[in-house]
Amino acid sequence: MSEHQTRVWRVNVRNQTLELEPVPETWQRLGGRGLLARILLDEVDPTCDPLGPGNKLIFAPGLLVGHMLSSTDRISVGGKSPLTGGIKESNAGGRTGLHMTHMGIYALIIEDLPEEDGFWVLHLSLDGPKWEKADGLVSLGVYETAPKLLEKYGDKVAIALIGPGGEMRLKSAGVQNIDKDRVPSRIAARGGLGALMGSKGLKAIVFDHAGGGKPPIARPEAFKAAQKDYTKAVLEHPQSATYRDYGTAAMAHMSDGFGALPTRNFSDGQFENVDDISGETLRDFILTRGKPGDPSHACMAGCTIKCSNIFAGEDGRIIVSPLEYETIGLMGSNLGISSLDMVGRLNWEANDLGLDSIEVGAALGVAAEAGLLEFGDGETALRLMGEIRAGTEVGRVLGDGAAATGEMYNIERVPVVKRQAMSAYEPRAIKGTGVTYATTPQGADHTCGLTIRAKIDHLDPQGQVDLSRTTQYNMAGYDTLGACIFAGFGYAATPDGVIQRLLSARYGWDDLPDNILQELGKQTIRMEREFNCRAGFTAKDDRLPEWMTREPLPPHNSVFDVPEEELDRIFEGIE
Amino acid sequence: MSEHQTRVWRVNVRNQTLELEPVPETWQRLGGRGLLARILLDEVDPTCDPLGPGNKLIFAPGLLVGHMLSSTDRISVGGKSPLTGGIKESNAGGRTGLHMTHMGIYALIIEDLPEEDGFWVLHLSLDGPKWEKADGLVSLGVYETAPKLLEKYGDKVAIALIGPGGEMRLKSAGVQNIDKDRVPSRIAARGGLGALMGSKGLKAIVFDHAGGGKPPIARPEAFKAAQKDYTKAVLEHPQSATYRDYGTAAMAHMSDGFGALPTRNFSDGQFENVDDISGETLRDFILTRGKPGDPSHACMAGCTIKCSNIFAGEDGRIIVSPLEYETIGLMGSNLGISSLDMVGRLNWEANDLGLDSIEVGAALGVAAEAGLLEFGDGETALRLMGEIRAGTEVGRVLGDGAAATGEMYNIERVPVVKRQAMSAYEPRAIKGTGVTYATTPQGADHTCGLTIRAKIDHLDPQGQVDLSRTTQYNMAGYDTLGACIFAGFGYAATPDGVIQRLLSARYGWDDLPDNILQELGKQTIRMEREFNCRAGFTAKDDRLPEWMTREPLPPHNSVFDVPEEELDRIFEGIE
Repeated sequence: MSEHQTRVWRVNVRNQTLELEPVPETWQRLGGRGLLARILLDEVDPTCDPLGPGNKLIFAPGLLVGHMLSSTDRISVGGKSPLTGGIKESNAGGRTGLHMTHMGIYALIIEDLPEEDGFWVLHLSLDGPKWEKADGLVSLGVYETAPKLLEKYGDKVAIALIGPGGEMRLKSAGVQNIDKDRVPSRIAARGGLGALMGSKGLKAIVFDHAGGGKPPIARPEAFKAAQKDYTKAVLEHPQSATYRDYGTAAMAHMSDGFGALPTRNFSDGQFENVDDISGETLRDFILTRGKPGDPSHACMAGCTIKCSNIFAGEDGRIIVSPLEYETIGLMGSNLGISSLDMVGRLNWEANDLGLDSIEVGAALGVAAEAGLLEFGDGETALRLMGEIRAGTEVGRVLGDGAAATGEMYNIERVPVVKRQAMSAYEPRAIKGTGVTYATTPQGADHTCGLTIRAKIDHLDPQGQVDLSRTTQYNMAGYDTLGACIFAGFGYAATPDGVIQRLLSARYGWDDLPDNILQELGKQTIRMEREFNCRAGFTAKDDRLPEWMTREPLPPHNSVFDVPEEELDRIFEGIE
Repeated sequence: MSEHQTRVWRVNVRNQTLELEPVPETWQRLGGRGLLARILLDEVDPTCDPLGPGNKLIFAPGLLVGHMLSSTDRISVGGKSPLTGGIKESNAGGRTGLHMTHMGIYALIIEDLPEEDGFWVLHLSLDGPKWEKADGLVSLGVYETAPKLLEKYGDKVAIALIGPGGEMRLKSAGVQNIDKDRVPSRIAARGGLGALMGSKGLKAIVFDHAGGGKPPIARPEAFKAAQKDYTKAVLEHPQSATYRDYGTAAMAHMSDGFGALPTRNFSDGQFENVDDISGETLRDFILTRGKPGDPSHACMAGCTIKCSNIFAGEDGRIIVSPLEYETIGLMGSNLGISSLDMVGRLNWEANDLGLDSIEVGAALGVAAEAGLLEFGDGETALRLMGEIRAGTEVGRVLGDGAAATGEMYNIERVPVVKRQAMSAYEPRAIKGTGVTYATTPQGADHTCGLTIRAKIDHLDPQGQVDLSRTTQYNMAGYDTLGACIFAGFGYAATPDGVIQRLLSARYGWDDLPDNILQELGKQTIRMEREFNCRAGFTAKDDRLPEWMTREPLPPHNSVFDVPEEELDRIFEGIE
């Protein structure tokens, strides 16, 4: 294929067929999260069984993916969520988005259920699809699977794959992607999309972009100029430097300072041993221990932020890469664990199983409250990760997430919205983020609208709804562009509407509104809400758990008190 | 208390207090299911945690309870359902209703959560409440618990109690009641109300009616005359004779004949060994084996139908009492089990644990599909009942019911509506009952509107919505009166509006409409729908599982094809 043609690639796993289709007109100004919402509304019955034949697994690169714009090559994965029962988009770094655009894949839509049980590797290239039985890979973790695939298909390919968790259809299973260094730890983690991929009988999808090339740019000079301005802004932004040095782990002290660090199953907002799991300590460990550790690592080619890290042990062996704040929060303080090495080991287990470390960390916190482990007892937590791997009943319930665990053991203090676990920002202390958790169509998720950096009183219920709305639109916009949320600092700091400049240069669009980011986000959330509404969601689902409105959170002894009437009005007029 | 005073008895389990309150005016023309709905709407936040402090466990005798009218002394138990998350009424025979009215208890409302863990026995009498630690009773089955309580409190009391299932807050746990022979097997089974009672820290409630007496009757002669007409109609109704001889088990052949006998997890509508589990065979066994077996046994004093039975083994020991059709369907054909002795043993286990045999049978069917047992393997099914008793994870998930089991093992063929298991009438073959399953606010439940006796083509989707509506109103009406659904044959056959005559004689009401039964039912369902709506239920919850609209059911190869628009209109105008 000499000429770059962008098509929708439609795979049917029952017939093992691939059809290339022109991009429908109504899909043409969308990418990533927004495109997923459009496709799901157009093609999936919102009331279908998430693991049945009617659901579809979709990969969609964002609108700006394909050009190694710093931190802007993310892949959005979506479908009806096996965890929440609502719409789901989860995105990841790594290579998948970039390679798909180089192959001209506008969206990859995977349909139906396989004729027979078992797992396949789907190899996609410009020569068409190849289906191979995943013999020898089944039940292997992703760290063992990926090298075998790279050996077979060459190390230039991109790979999206699932671990044993996805094979078992666990509702915390995500879709792992290899990064620029071919490590399979870039997980589209949230909402159980790995279970959806498992239901389609796919252990891995290999994207071989040989013969492809960069997507066309309508006005190359204009694009280059905009890219330059943007890159400069990213590089110069003070936040980028913080992320480069400390990674997301820098948030540990910040959250603790706000009294918003989930501790012992969301029963406290401060952790007495926060110093032991902070970003500063993590950096210190990495620098002291030396290679192969690395405090500043990029997950995508061209990323100048490099918030990722490689965390190695005293023995000089890699424990996990990256170790992120949300994992530190959920598998560290939330479990009363104050050893970064232990958090890293738990994280590796979750990664290798292909599970969302937030969801599993929250489930373990609930399990601790149920008496399955003591807070602080990392060895038992590791043993429970082994139960997940073994597929025992206790393992399955933990692997199905915090809501399932709470239901099994009748624990009230379960930190979920729409059955999805909250991440490491306590909504009673950061109330704007609580509004986001409650009202985003995605289920509790900080990446849908984290408000912790706003210069306001986070304990005051006033104004949080407006703040959350703006932030949610921005985030949905970035997810539609394929931009990492940290790229947002750069985009926001670049003058002269750099997003408009990039989009119009890339596509030749001259009619973009000034507030394109907000518009993209708004239209995305509108579609997502429509899907959820058709799936049966109501205002009652846009709530934090009732106990958070009643149980005061130390140290501020605050409850979540943003009025329900305000929550109900957050998207007023969007339909 | 010499004078008969009817009061609302309000118990707070945190403070261990009892308050007697006058009956509010808006509650005064309600009883049983209708009264529960009114109280729940007035006092319980529909979005509360069903096992949290905001939910209430309520016991309410029906309007006609207290006079040993044949089959009309049932007790309605209710609350927000731990199983469905919606409103729940479940009723039972036995002594509880009768004794409550003799104590002047209009409704017993149990509030809040206990201060500390553990279980209590609450002894209620006209001298007030006594609280005793349930030491020595915790984790005992109901068959062992009830005799100990009777020994302590005397054998004249009524008792409502839970088994280990309720203590573990399993979502299939019900509230057991002793019958006129003091056997604790009259279970308000559905919707997890035993878990709710467990959350209140109550192992048992003892109702000691010493010093009480029959409720007053405004016009005794008129009441007596109406009662005489009604009793005669019940006795003469041919259906009563069938129930007396064969019990509800008579339905096995009838359902099988319609192709509506759930077989091997609802994958077939006929069971090749139906003869082995039929009512005829059951009667034959009971008569051949002799005492203590009894084919015609009454659960309530004064009942002339006597649909209950005592089923004993060849060794002359009681296996279970009663053995009912729904249990035969769910724990027999649905599991591919063709031995009545085995079904009886499974039934005993469910009873002793205080669990709903329908829900647990359905969960075992789903478990069989997941490979936990082979269809037909009763010994393994018994072993799994042992797992429930032991509180293992597999036991907990089974004890949480069919929906939880399906979620754990990712099984699509789960026969539930609103997370509650269908009973032993296949909705693809008896489509009117399918409409009832889909649209009743209670979750799938044949007692909310079984249509199998209507003289229509049950496979034709036409007209089923109208049939179901009428039947649902009637059933909700009977549940509000405290009448057993079999009493309905008698009420329907008695001329001259016997329900109006009974109610006006009992209470002195002269303004009752002719269609009082339908009116009571309609107003009850209106309130129940309002509660569910506030809890977040929508039309999307008024659906059979999607696979039943797609998977043809042998032998008729029918699917459930009553149009969704018709389902949505069933209660049009009720609000």
